[in-house]
Order: sequence, then structure tokens, then C-alpha cells
Amino acid sequence: MNTQQPRVVIVGAGFGGLFAARALAGKPVDVLLIDRNNFHTFTPLLYQVATCALDPSEIAYPIRTIFRKDRNIRTLLGNVTAIDYANKCLAVAVGEQTLQERYDYLILATGSVPTYFGQEAFRDNALELRTLSDAVNLRNHILALFEQATWIEDEAIQKAMTTIVVVGGGPTGLETAGAIFELYNHVLNQEYVHRDLSARVVLIEMQPFLLAPYPDKLRQAALEQLRSLGVEVRLGSPVESVAHDHVQLKDGERLETYTLVWAAGVKGSPVAELLDVELKRGNRVPILPTTEVVNRPAIYAVGDMSYLDDEDGNPYPMLIPVAQQQGELAAQNILAEIRGGEKRPFRYHDRGTMSTIGRRRAVAWIYNKIQLRGYIAWLAWLGLHLVTLLGFRNRLSVFLSWVWNYFTYDRSVRIILNQERE
Amino acid sequence: MNTQQPRVVIVGAGFGGLFAARALAGKPVDVLLIDRNNFHTFTPLLYQVATCALDPSEIAYPIRTIFRKDRNIRTLLGNVTAIDYANKCLAVAVGEQTLQERYDYLILATGSVPTYFGQEAFRDNALELRTLSDAVNLRNHILALFEQATWIEDEAIQKAMTTIVVVGGGPTGLETAGAIFELYNHVLNQEYVHRDLSARVVLIEMQPFLLAPYPDKLRQAALEQLRSLGVEVRLGSPVESVAHDHVQLKDGERLETYTLVWAAGVKGSPVAELLDVELKRGNRVPILPTTEVVNRPAIYAVGDMSYLDDEDGNPYPMLIPVAQQQGELAAQNILAEIRGGEKRPFRYHDRGTMSTIGRRRAVAWIYNKIQLRGYIAWLAWLGLHLVTLLGFRNRLSVFLSWVWNYFTYDRSVRIILNQERE
Repeated sequence: MNTQQPRVVIVGAGFGGLFAARALAGKPVDVLLIDRNNFHTFTPLLYQVATCALDPSEIAYPIRTIFRKDRNIRTLLGNVTAIDYANKCLAVAVGEQTLQERYDYLILATGSVPTYFGQEAFRDNALELRTLSDAVNLRNHILALFEQATWIEDEAIQKAMTTIVVVGGGPTGLETAGAIFELYNHVLNQEYVHRDLSARVVLIEMQPFLLAPYPDKLRQAALEQLRSLGVEVRLGSPVESVAHDHVQLKDGERLETYTLVWAAGVKGSPVAELLDVELKRGNRVPILPTTEVVNRPAIYAVGDMSYLDDEDGNPYPMLIPVAQQQGELAAQNILAEIRGGEKRPFRYHDRGTMSTIGRRRAVAWIYNKIQLRGYIAWLAWLGLHLVTLLGFRNRLSVFLSWVWNYFTYDRSVRIILNQERE
Repeated sequence: MNTQQPRVVIVGAGFGGLFAARALAGKPVDVLLIDRNNFHTFTPLLYQVATCALDPSEIAYPIRTIFRKDRNIRTLLGNVTAIDYANKCLAVAVGEQTLQERYDYLILATGSVPTYFGQEAFRDNALELRTLSDAVNLRNHILALFEQATWIEDEAIQKAMTTIVVVGGGPTGLETAGAIFELYNHVLNQEYVHRDLSARVVLIEMQPFLLAPYPDKLRQAALEQLRSLGVEVRLGSPVESVAHDHVQLKDGERLETYTLVWAAGVKGSPVAELLDVELKRGNRVPILPTTEVVNRPAIYAVGDMSYLDDEDGNPYPMLIPVAQQQGELAAQNILAEIRGGEKRPFRYHDRGTMSTIGRRRAVAWIYNKIQLRGYIAWLAWLGLHLVTLLGFRNRLSVFLSWVWNYFTYDRSVRIILNQERE
């Protein structure tokens, strides 16, 4: 390793950090990629891990393997605990020790975390779906509740055990609600013949519509498909309070449940706070169009944790393609700076968005022009996600799992796996 | 469900309990199968989960799915906490409640747990490999240590981090030692080019030979294959003491390590103690040749947790085929008793044993006559384990994983997955 080369440290191996590192592979810089996990997570399929359709490893890919041929990229499993921007140095907790890592350029790409809008009681009773551990925990919870529900005599408690409340009408909320409904009513319920254990799944959205960024027709199509599946949808119904055994809506309705999945919103990752700058709405780091952090030379921030207005004065959305394109741009701008070239401003290439609701149900809005719904949108969703998944083996494995699950109505990963030692 | 039918409760869905339940499927009895997990574990492949070759779900199969077509078999996820043999009733903890389950006949098949021969300090510092959770914990531990070792400056600590000690010269010890050696030195090490991180794997056995039940030639073949792979073997070396950072052998040798895998011995499961009978050596329940527990009418015990002498006065070994055959016999004897027929004594059909050591390395002793070693034994091992794995999907999936791992020298499940919420 050439120690004369400028050193670029990237924090976070999500979509932003990964694309930044890839753009720096083989270039005349030394790269250190830091993440708290040893794998990159393909987050769009987390809900399928949570609902027993896929194994965790099928949507996770070891970071070391991604860069095994790139000798200028090293990886470090650790947590960044401090940023000394004056001395261009990071503190990284690795096991029980703390390393001091020097940088010439820093790219922050640590993403986002769920926000409860200041209601900590919501958080204490909610299950999340942002990390692979979240997905496994949700899977364990759902399967364990079903097993208990089969043995409960008290009808009211049994009903509450088979009632699942999902808060948030974005893609994660829709996908999760649809998949849990199918898991309970098309898979688990079929294996319990002695009693009817149909699950009730309720999706709650504060706004009067689902999928806020979509055009009206697709919002409506998503709503109809969800309802045709069997999911109950409450629109314009904010949550008022939450306890371990119920969710109380502002409009007076009370839902007895032991399962609250929180998919209502995210904010910038806590790493944003280490920068000592005034954060924007949603805990996000203000950046220049070059993706450099405002007033923090040599530091770049990309993806969900960063905040940048588009030409119309609206912030760029917290979406994977934005993170990928910003990550790539940050890397290119650093290389330009080293070469003495000119930095480019961010320009978002929006290829559209899609969201799946269940078997043969989805909506897609391609290039913000073509609107698809139902079967064709679902096929487009499947194809896109297979192609963008990292690693040939994962792609093959997910494809085979999907084919299997589709034809057998089975779910392959039906295990409650807790890590406590007995 | 016909409530007039005799009720058979089976505790444990391992190999013994599973074969008992299968033998009772469709018969004029009501069966309740209780296990603390919602899945059956194919334990012979646990070490492959621990060493990143297979996903947990590939060797686990939902109990509910196994019996979904058998209307006389119900399943219960819970822990048996008491046996009231006078009133023929069991206490089962299910979530926060305790159920009382009545039985006419009881089959206990709860297997075995590791034994530390009274040395609790050993247990506190050891990793086990008896359950699926154990396997995931060991995988996390091994991968995390490797990541830390790549960043440690202190050479002595780094050496200790890449030294793995396995105690126990039985099949589990051999398989685990071989697989960890291959994982470190043929997979992980290849992805870290900046420094040599070869792992040292030491297998420790108290006796002067490996694989006690095997004939001498095969013991020798196993030893040679292990050593040719690169594993260090210490024979006739009992462990004297253990701490978090070293293992001290009785012969004076001290091994600096943070990884001690304990595969040195097992004893009957704690459920044996609920029977209030005098237990045999190794905490095992004394049974009659019919597999009925001595002095406990209507209670049967099978597999690892039970103790029965063969014709030569030696106890039957704690092996899967013994558990399977005893489980089946217990079910048949219960049906015979119900019909007023005659109970049969246990007669073990021994088809032999095999043990694998690594890629293309194994020993097999078939029908206690044919001795195989090396490549041919390894192929026999692969074939047998594929065929006996439960569920077509798991079989297909494991087969594909093996083919993939064999040709790519990759390990597919390289993720450190902890379940704590951040």
C-alpha cells in the first residue's frame, strides 16, 4: 500500500457508501470503508426476511467479498464514535479498543433511523424494519405469537395476538402489511386446522392517502389492491397513544394488538450529530450541491443522512437511487479535487419508484411517466430487485426461493431463532 | 378430534420424538408433540452453520409443516417444567402462561446437553454446538474475531485471536476443527491480503486416540487426515483449567486463545430430573428393553436421555439411529398396549457410523464391517446426509450450497448477525 496516496475514509456500507467505494476502486487513493456490520444489506427485501420468505444471508453480502480484488480498499468493522474535523481524524470503536483513523477526505453515508416524532412510548412498544436484526426479531415475534395464539383459550387475547398493526403508508408499510397478511392467512393458518386463526392486519396512515410521492391514480390503485388482499386500511388516522397491548388512534378507535410495526418515518443517522453543524429538518446534514458538508471542508455526506434542495427548492427524497448517485458523485468530486479538476454538482437521474403489496400486486411509476399496477407492476418489481441484488449466488438463491414460495404457498424460513444460550 | 382416544404426549421433536410421532400418525390416538423450538434441527450439520457453509433454516424444518396432514397430531411450542406422574399430567410453560396437559402415555425424548464434568469455569468460557442458536453464536464469534484480528497491532493478541481450540475427539470435534480450519485458511484469509492471518486450530482429546467407537485403523486414518489438513492434534491431554484468554492442558502446555469449542461430552437433558427416579451415569433415565421408564408406568424415554444396556452389558450409544429406533419402538409398544398386544424389546440395527473431517476427508464404518476413508468416505457422508435431511426444499438448498461452496471455495453465510436492537 502506497502511504503517499491521499486517504479516503468512508463511513457506512449501505447504498451510498458502497457506490462511493466502488467509484474509488483502483484509483490513486487509499480507501478505508467502515461499517458496524460485516455485510451490506439489501434493504428493499428486509420485509421478506421478516415474513419468512427469505433467509437473512440471501439479502446480505459480505463487504470484504465485494472488495476482495481491490487492493486499495480496506474494510473495518466498527462504530464511529467521534469526528475530529479540525485534525481530520475519526475515533472508531472496534471490539473493546478504539482506533484513531486519519483521513484526507471523509465520506459519511450512515443512512437513517426510525423516528417516533418525540414519542418514546411508541418506540418502546414498536418493532422496526430498518436492519437485518430488526427483520429477524420481527420474524421471531410474529411466529411466536402465532404459536401462542393456537393455545390461548381467551378469545379476546387470541384476537389481539392475531391482530397486527402497521403504522406508515409508504412502501415499507405496504409491503410489510401485505406480506404479514399472506404469511398468516395463506401459510400459517393452513397448518392449524383445529380452530380458525385468521389474522387481522391494519395499516394506519396519518395522511388521507397512501404512497405520498406517487400520482393519485397509483395511490388509489395501491389502496384498492391492499384492500382486495384483505388488509384493513385507516387513512387520515394519526396514532394517539400506544401500549404493549393496544394502539389508540386519534379518531377514537382502539386496536387490541401485541404487534405494532413502525414504518412511519425516518430521520438522519446519529452520526450526523458528530459533525457539530446545525442540522436540517429530520436530523439531516446540510450539504452543497457537490455533496460536501456546509462549512466542513474535506467532509462529504451522501444519501438519507444528507440534506440538499433540488431546483424547485424541495429536498431530495431519502431513496436508494439518490444515495447511490450521491455516493458516486462524492467519490468523483474527491478524485477531481486531488487532480485539481473541477467538482460537479448533484443532478438526480430519477428512474421512478415502485412498491409491492403482495402476490401479483404492486404499483410502479417508471421515469415518472409510465404508471403500472397489478400483475405487470409486480413482475417489474421482481425483475428489478433480482437484477440489483448483489452477488450471483444471492440472486440465484432469491430467485429459487421466490419460485418455490410462489408455487408451494410455503415460506421457507419459518424458524424462531433466539440467540440466548440455554 | 375424538376425545375418547388415548392421549399420547411426546416431549421433544428431535430424532427420537419425531420418529415416535410419525409412527403414531393416523393411528387411533391423540398426539401432542411438545418442543421448545418450532422446528426440528438436523444436528449433524450444525457445524456447517457455525462455519458459514449453510443457513440456519437449511437444517431446520418447522414441526408444524412435518405434521400438517396428520389431524391426530397437534404441536405445542413450550417448555416442560414439571411432570406429575401420579396424576398423569405435565406443566408446560407457553409464553407467560403455564398449561396443564394430561396424558395417558408419555414419551420423553429431550436428548442431551453438554457436560463439563463439574467444571463450571469451563462452561463459562466455552462455546457449544448442540443447538441452532449455539451454531449462530459460534459463527458470529468466529467472524467477529477475524475482523478484530485484522486490525490488532499486538502480535501476541492477534495470534490468540486466530487460535481456535476444540476440545473433544468425537465426530463433532473433528468436523468442527476441520471446518473452522478451512473457513479461516481457505476462505477468510484469502480476502485479507495486507497481512498473514493464518489460523491455528488445535484439537484436544483426553484419550490417546480419536473417535473412540471406531476400529483402530479408522482412528488412525482420521488422525492422519486431520493433520494433513493442518489441524494440530493433542492426544492424551486433558484440560486442566480455562480462562477467557487461554486453555491450560494438564501436560503443561498453555494455549493462548479466545475461542474454546466444547465438544467433549454430553449428559442426559435436565428433563430427566423431573421424573424423580434414580438416574444412571451421565444423568440418563433407566429404561426397560421396551423403552418404558423403570418404575414409572405409562412413561417411555428414548434416545440420548435414556439408559439401556445391550446384550453385552454396555449401554447403547447416544447416537441418532438409536434415538430413531427407540422412538419408533416406544410408539409401537404404546399402540400394542392399547390394543392389548405384546410389547417388543429394543433391538438395535446398527448400520454403522461416519465422520467427516473436511473437503474430501472422512472416515466411515459401514455395518461395522466395511471401512472407508478419504474421498470415498466423504462422498458417502455427503450422500447419506443429503438423503436423510428433512424436506425436499432443504435437501435441494443444501445440495446447491455444497456444490457452490465446493467449486468457489466461498462460504455463503458470512454474516455477523446479532439480535440486539440499536
